[in-house]
Amino acid sequence: MKNTFGNNVSVTLFGESHGAAIGVVLDGVAPNIPINRDRIDALLSLRRPSGDISTSRKEKDEYVIESGVFEGKTTGTPICILIPNADTKSADYGDMRYNVRPSHADFAADVKYGGAEDYRGGGHQSGRLTAALVAAAGILIPALENKGIYIGTHIKSIAGVEDRHFSDIAADIASIKDKYFAVLDESAEEKMTEKILLAKAEGDSVGGVLSTAIVGLPAGVGEPWFDTLEGVLAHALFSVPAVKGVEFGAGFSLATMKGSEANDAFYMENGEIKTKTNSAGGINGGITNGMPVTFNCVIRPTPTIAKEQETVNIKTRENATLAAKGRHDACIVHRARAVIDAVTAIALADVLATRFGTDWLAQ
Amino acid sequence: MKNTFGNNVSVTLFGESHGAAIGVVLDGVAPNIPINRDRIDALLSLRRPSGDISTSRKEKDEYVIESGVFEGKTTGTPICILIPNADTKSADYGDMRYNVRPSHADFAADVKYGGAEDYRGGGHQSGRLTAALVAAAGILIPALENKGIYIGTHIKSIAGVEDRHFSDIAADIASIKDKYFAVLDESAEEKMTEKILLAKAEGDSVGGVLSTAIVGLPAGVGEPWFDTLEGVLAHALFSVPAVKGVEFGAGFSLATMKGSEANDAFYMENGEIKTKTNSAGGINGGITNGMPVTFNCVIRPTPTIAKEQETVNIKTRENATLAAKGRHDACIVHRARAVIDAVTAIALADVLATRFGTDWLAQ
Amino acid sequence: MKNTFGNNVSVTLFGESHGAAIGVVLDGVAPNIPINRDRIDALLSLRRPSGDISTSRKEKDEYVIESGVFEGKTTGTPICILIPNADTKSADYGDMRYNVRPSHADFAADVKYGGAEDYRGGGHQSGRLTAALVAAAGILIPALENKGIYIGTHIKSIAGVEDRHFSDIAADIASIKDKYFAVLDESAEEKMTEKILLAKAEGDSVGGVLSTAIVGLPAGVGEPWFDTLEGVLAHALFSVPAVKGVEFGAGFSLATMKGSEANDAFYMENGEIKTKTNSAGGINGGITNGMPVTFNCVIRPTPTIAKEQETVNIKTRENATLAAKGRHDACIVHRARAVIDAVTAIALADVLATRFGTDWLAQ
Amino acid sequence: MKNTFGNNVSVTLFGESHGAAIGVVLDGVAPNIPINRDRIDALLSLRRPSGDISTSRKEKDEYVIESGVFEGKTTGTPICILIPNADTKSADYGDMRYNVRPSHADFAADVKYGGAEDYRGGGHQSGRLTAALVAAAGILIPALENKGIYIGTHIKSIAGVEDRHFSDIAADIASIKDKYFAVLDESAEEKMTEKILLAKAEGDSVGGVLSTAIVGLPAGVGEPWFDTLEGVLAHALFSVPAVKGVEFGAGFSLATMKGSEANDAFYMENGEIKTKTNSAGGINGGITNGMPVTFNCVIRPTPTIAKEQETVNIKTRENATLAAKGRHDACIVHRARAVIDAVTAIALADVLATRFGTDWLAQ
Repeated sequence: MKNTFGNNVSVTLFGESHGAAIGVVLDGVAPNIPINRDRIDALLSLRRPSGDISTSRKEKDEYVIESGVFEGKTTGTPICILIPNADTKSADYGDMRYNVRPSHADFAADVKYGGAEDYRGGGHQSGRLTAALVAAAGILIPALENKGIYIGTHIKSIAGVEDRHFSDIAADIASIKDKYFAVLDESAEEKMTEKILLAKAEGDSVGGVLSTAIVGLPAGVGEPWFDTLEGVLAHALFSVPAVKGVEFGAGFSLATMKGSEANDAFYMENGEIKTKTNSAGGINGGITNGMPVTFNCVIRPTPTIAKEQETVNIKTRENATLAAKGRHDACIVHRARAVIDAVTAIALADVLATRFGTDWLAQ
Repeated sequence: MKNTFGNNVSVTLFGESHGAAIGVVLDGVAPNIPINRDRIDALLSLRRPSGDISTSRKEKDEYVIESGVFEGKTTGTPICILIPNADTKSADYGDMRYNVRPSHADFAADVKYGGAEDYRGGGHQSGRLTAALVAAAGILIPALENKGIYIGTHIKSIAGVEDRHFSDIAADIASIKDKYFAVLDESAEEKMTEKILLAKAEGDSVGGVLSTAIVGLPAGVGEPWFDTLEGVLAHALFSVPAVKGVEFGAGFSLATMKGSEANDAFYMENGEIKTKTNSAGGINGGITNGMPVTFNCVIRPTPTIAKEQETVNIKTRENATLAAKGRHDACIVHRARAVIDAVTAIALADVLATRFGTDWLAQ
Repeated sequence: MKNTFGNNVSVTLFGESHGAAIGVVLDGVAPNIPINRDRIDALLSLRRPSGDISTSRKEKDEYVIESGVFEGKTTGTPICILIPNADTKSADYGDMRYNVRPSHADFAADVKYGGAEDYRGGGHQSGRLTAALVAAAGILIPALENKGIYIGTHIKSIAGVEDRHFSDIAADIASIKDKYFAVLDESAEEKMTEKILLAKAEGDSVGGVLSTAIVGLPAGVGEPWFDTLEGVLAHALFSVPAVKGVEFGAGFSLATMKGSEANDAFYMENGEIKTKTNSAGGINGGITNGMPVTFNCVIRPTPTIAKEQETVNIKTRENATLAAKGRHDACIVHRARAVIDAVTAIALADVLATRFGTDWLAQ
Repeated sequence: MKNTFGNNVSVTLFGESHGAAIGVVLDGVAPNIPINRDRIDALLSLRRPSGDISTSRKEKDEYVIESGVFEGKTTGTPICILIPNADTKSADYGDMRYNVRPSHADFAADVKYGGAEDYRGGGHQSGRLTAALVAAAGILIPALENKGIYIGTHIKSIAGVEDRHFSDIAADIASIKDKYFAVLDESAEEKMTEKILLAKAEGDSVGGVLSTAIVGLPAGVGEPWFDTLEGVLAHALFSVPAVKGVEFGAGFSLATMKGSEANDAFYMENGEIKTKTNSAGGINGGITNGMPVTFNCVIRPTPTIAKEQETVNIKTRENATLAAKGRHDACIVHRARAVIDAVTAIALADVLATRFGTDWLAQ
């Protein structure tokens, strides 16, 4: 299915950056889950551009729940959340129509859609649409927490500046819950921000790595072929624009470890089976083992930059140059964090509903 | 769907390592595609254990095509390929039933399947099942090549020993096509093999990274939300046991690049739009741009090792130790290569059928 | 998937009768298909209550296309059509909350949704939602016609009064295209209307049968197991509230025919293969044979009637009585016709995209 | 998905009538369900041709469970059941290759598969494949019964000879469980058999209607849009070759009933909500209401008949005649009964797993 993700809990995403609205239909959610609008707003604010380090496009993300919610609770029917596009300045991007932005989807989309795409502001491929995913997840995240499942993502690195690693994961997740710039080590924020502002001053951009942990997932979730928890999460995560790599547990560093180093020894702790290390990121053979699920996503530097770049004009089919004049971000790593959490919550809600039935989330 | 992957071209995988048979149903394949049994055999032999560096379990992988093929060609109906299990020595693994192998799926599967799983030899989670995927891909790979689409995977590294990078990709793919140990730089093989044999001698195992390239994919393939080419490929790739990370193009190294470095400038070459670099791995916004698609997968060191390890007994729920006595591989990186190619071919066949219709592959 | 229908072209339906809005996301539609708002309006008007024979609820069905359309054409991205609910009089139905309407979904939905459903006006189960399906089909129907595929439904019978059968199908389809009361034999309308008004006067309701034909479908469409054209159409048709039976070709009358009578003899006509009769309704073994596809749907009498009925109060769990006071239809057969055409168009667009690829519809 | 049915519990069907084997992969079944081979055999024997009224093709239906079962119980992994084709006499049908059988899928399949289909004995479209569905259902049916859900189908009519209606449904289902010729009124069997033998003597065939009831289904199962229980069941039922119509409850007779007659009044009985009549067949708005689910399927007369028929030769594209010489059935209504039960069980297992989770069936 093209713009739908999920089997039992699903999201269908629609909209274009400069069209009438963006939105999402969240389906398969159990009835009787309370809607916490403050939490939805809080999550949206973590994704929204803010301060010197972000684009000056200001969307209030004022969403309307068109269906599926009655008297403050989910009804069990599809929840359509609509976010009208307010602050669109299409003129800014108009001249980018044919001078396609390098490493952006402009050219690929033009081929795919036969020239019919709404090219303004990245159209349907715009990161703008992730606001709708965050709003949808704003319904699921408190419900998952109510079941003891907590998701947290911190900025592992930006432009080479590293945050500390997760340590006491549950406490770390709690500590970054409301932070706009989600670092575990406060001192990292200043150094990262410096790098971002430096890149901005140069008309350039920077990327980084986001590190996510999930605690409270029961063991035994995920299907060996082909809906491994890794596969389902990665499928969702790669939808987030700018994600170009996903690794679980020790990830790529497993390449130089020996089996005896990489294996996570089981042991008994207070009657529960745990592992001493967690190089597997809580997933063995695609199935959760009850340890925290951990993964990293690399967020590429924003492709839209002010610096002049070489490109082609897809109409004249001649070489051309381009210097972005629209509003854009010198870094989206910190904003992408809310989106990573959102798609993680959506994917988890789906695999849990598949495993335990639709109603489980509300019980 | 649990054990089915794909929307328009799909595989349904079944079987257990020590059961009657493993197999696959490959569905949605266009009629009139010739079956090349030599090629299927050749692909299976690339996955099969061979020589000192592999397990001594010898499966001939003698497969039976039970349906969907008539007079040497696909009929357009589901193709069931059955591979009976021949050389099973269940006694070897019997005592592992409750002393679960660290970083293997034994414990997670036991929770998932409520103790009903066929635990012998890894059961349904066994890498053995990938033989069926390779056989299925043996039908698709020549058909994709007939459309000008070539897939190739080389061993980027094993235990820290690096192969050279892809250079002339089409030529490199051709050069490794029939190599059992798929390195681009012949001299890397000896050093890698040394590392494997050393680990084996120590009762240990090693991992590595596989690097894959696809040439000939048309631009405009992939869906922005949520069936990005990255997401669909990653979903399939994470099904391959031992894959713990997937990165496209420059992948995790994008984290420390600036936008101006990471962006792939477009330019005209003989009337075609190309990019000067390919840090995006041929995919922009989830959609192909016509450049080679490139990705790396990390293959963790095999979890089954002869060295004694700490674990728990899931029946007595007490701490225990384990030293694998069954046949196992000290390294599966070189064998996994055929599986990476296989799931890549399956995923590509699906996205191409979705884009161009079922019959496209036979035209 | 709960509220999504279709694999390659899909609709996701959302909304409640008395909520903020109803709507649909239509996905998988080829880019570059012109949007004909006059046609959408015309189709919606065929479904809308009108005259003495319908409910007095007047919805203008003013829809907003929120996405997926740019410069008057489809973009290839999901098309969200929103229809705000305007003329809702929730007070009318309020007292029905616990005195559940016989043969309506009130009780079944209350069990399903654990009491959390928006009960007003039938909530998510309301026939009101079919307006969104008609609007979505308003994009597909002209596109199918552009490919030579025409769908038409006439009122085969209401309350026992019969229309004549399809004769020259293409001409018959054209003749009813814009008729609000779609009979082939004009004289049937008066007799049917009499029956409806009589039932209305008695506080009762009547049902009937709708007969549909599709011309121009190529042979070879449909999958033997399990996506037969019959199965896919029936799946969609049974979603239409009030449809309780679907039969293809000669349908239930085949039960008393002999094979020699029921078989449709093939013959050559101007170089084309045709059948002399069409008892199979253009479908053999689930696959189209190139003849017109024909089917009938029975539309049950509207369950909401003014007459007093016995029921239970689901809160007190005691017997109760009920006499509907809200606005309702004494007959919906004539209005349902537009919905049958709509879901037929949606199902056809999907199976054709699966067969010929996404872009086929725009070519 | 082409040859896969079901979301959470699914069947993937493969094979050709005269190929190596037919078979099915049944996936999503909870672990720990006992396999009752006697019951599977008994169900297969109900579908198998027997006596004068059936084809003389004798398949023993000796099936092999290749996977997903261990120590007599389901493991929770995909269950592949293979039924090798034994008694194939391909020569019988060889000359039918181009003289396509009227109302059979030969011509439609030839167009669909571009001439590559295995045409022998109906190939992939053959009713033979339903044996695999019955075998798969042989695992599900006892599991459903263990949950209090019973499915029964009787021969409502053959060639116009009527059986009595269901009366005490649970008792009626029990009474026909093991009957090869499933009539409720014993006296109907003789009259029906006479009609069949008469048709056979004439080289002709007869059809009829099958009537199915399900007791014990909980209320609240089914999705209003689009996975109504009616839609999901009909989708599955139309896959059964020869089914050309499906009606629920009073079905097509609702067309001439008034709302006040057709409505099923609710009332309290021993603290439970029931309906006095069941014209809706236990389904309101697509959702079960706790009453027995009832439906009828029309089974067309077998298209393969000995009588000479007019047809075309699809190779020469000229008119031709055909008189079937192969083994065939003068009536399949009584045999189809086991298949109707089978696909009903498969569809129910799926919707119940969707509603209550995968493990529910084993609890």
